[in-house]
Amino acid sequence: MNLILLTDNDFISASQVRLNDRRAEHIRTVHRADAGEVLLVGLIGGKIGYGTVEEINETSVSLAVTLEREPPKPLDLKLFLALPRPKYLARCLQTATSLGVKQIYLMNSYRVEKMYWSCAQLAPAEINRACLLGLEQARDTVLPTVHMKRLFKPFVEDELPALIAGTTAVLAHPSAPTPCPFSLQGETSLAIGPEGGFIDYEVQKLKEIGFQAVHTFERILKVETALASLIGRLK
Amino acid sequence: MNLILLTDNDFISASQVRLNDRRAEHIRTVHRADAGEVLLVGLIGGKIGYGTVEEINETSVSLAVTLEREPPKPLDLKLFLALPRPKYLARCLQTATSLGVKQIYLMNSYRVEKMYWSCAQLAPAEINRACLLGLEQARDTVLPTVHMKRLFKPFVEDELPALIAGTTAVLAHPSAPTPCPFSLQGETSLAIGPEGGFIDYEVQKLKEIGFQAVHTFERILKVETALASLIGRLK
Repeated sequence: MNLILLTDNDFISASQVRLNDRRAEHIRTVHRADAGEVLLVGLIGGKIGYGTVEEINETSVSLAVTLEREPPKPLDLKLFLALPRPKYLARCLQTATSLGVKQIYLMNSYRVEKMYWSCAQLAPAEINRACLLGLEQARDTVLPTVHMKRLFKPFVEDELPALIAGTTAVLAHPSAPTPCPFSLQGETSLAIGPEGGFIDYEVQKLKEIGFQAVHTFERILKVETALASLIGRLK
Repeated sequence: MNLILLTDNDFISASQVRLNDRRAEHIRTVHRADAGEVLLVGLIGGKIGYGTVEEINETSVSLAVTLEREPPKPLDLKLFLALPRPKYLARCLQTATSLGVKQIYLMNSYRVEKMYWSCAQLAPAEINRACLLGLEQARDTVLPTVHMKRLFKPFVEDELPALIAGTTAVLAHPSAPTPCPFSLQGETSLAIGPEGGFIDYEVQKLKEIGFQAVHTFERILKVETALASLIGRLK
C-alpha cells in the first residue's frame, strides 16, 4: 500500500477522515504510525496529498487531509484482453491498473472457457478490489473502467471499430511474422488473446477492422508477464 | 506446466522415463492423458521433444521420449537485482526465467533489509523450484544461474566491471533524467534497485563502473512487473 486511498464516505469533516478497515490496520501494523506522522493519501478519482495522523487506536485512525496534486497521467493505451483464467484475472487487472491503463475490455474468444464468464472473480466487488490494489501499488487514484464483452463477433463488428478509431491497434499474436513495434506515439490499442492465442477466424476479424498482428515472444508467458512486457515495449 | 521437464534420473532406459511426482499428478489430472497421448517434454539443460504415454496409473506415468530440438534462445541480458522482499522473490525468479534470463545476480543494497538474506526462500531448493516453474511456463530447459552477492561494495568494485564488460549496462532509477532506451542490440546488463531505489552512493558507484542511469516509470511498480516491462522494452 504505497498510497492510502480515500473515498468521500471516509470524511468526517471537510479535511478529516476516519478509517477503521484494512487501511487503519495497515497504518497501525505496517507504518506503525504515531500521532503526527504524515502519510501519502489520495482521493479515489481525485487528487493526491498528505494525511497527518491525529488519533490512532485499536479500532480507528483519524487523519487531517490535504489534497494538492493531480494523480499520474493515464497511459494512452486501451487494453483488449481475452478473459483470463479466473485465478489469473485479479493479477492481470492489478498489473494493468498499476501500469496506468484506464480502459480494460475483457472479451470473449473461442479458447476462453465458457465457465470463466460465470466465475466469482468477475463480480464487481472483486474487480474493484483488484483495481484498487493496482492503484495503491502505483500511487494513482483513477480506477480503470472494466468492460465485459461476452460475445466476440458483435463486439468486434459493432463496437470495436469505433473504440480503436484514431489509435494504433496492435494484436499480440505468436505466429504473426511482423515484429512488435517499440515506442508508439499517440493513442494505442493492444489486444492480447487467451492461452493458446486467438483462433485464425478471430485474428482475421481483428485484422479486418484495423488491428496489425505482431509477433512478440518465442516463449509462452503468463498473461500478466506478457501484459507488462508488451506495455513496456509499446509505450 | 506447458512443458514437462525431465532429469537424467527419470530415465529407466535410453528413451523411457518413469515419473511419480507432481509431474505424474499433472499428467493424470490436468492433461487427463491416456496411453498413446503425446506430451511436450524437455530434458533439463538439454533438448525439447515428445513423450508418448506408455503406461499411466495411480502412482506413476511412463513415457517413451524423443528429444529432437534445441530449447529457445537465451535472452542476451544479465539481470542485477537488489534482493527483493522474500515473498516476492520466487515470483521475480520465475518471471525472469520465463523471459529467458540466464544470469541473475541477487545483490545487496542499503535498502535491502538484512534479514532478507537469511530467509527460507533463498535456500537452493526454493530457488531451483522457482526457476523450474519459469522454465515450465516458457517451454525452456536451461536453468538460469542465480548468484548471491551479499556485499555491495566488493561486488560492484571487484566483480561487476568484468561482468558488464562489452555489454550496454542500464540502471533503472526513478529519478534519472535520461529516458530508458528501447530495443538495445547486443548483450545488455540491467540493474534494478530495491523498493525505494538504490541510494545515491550506490547509484554513483554503479555509474562509475559504466552503468547508465535511466528513468522508467512515473509509477511505482511491483518488482516483477517492472522487470517484465523493462525487459520487454529493452530487448
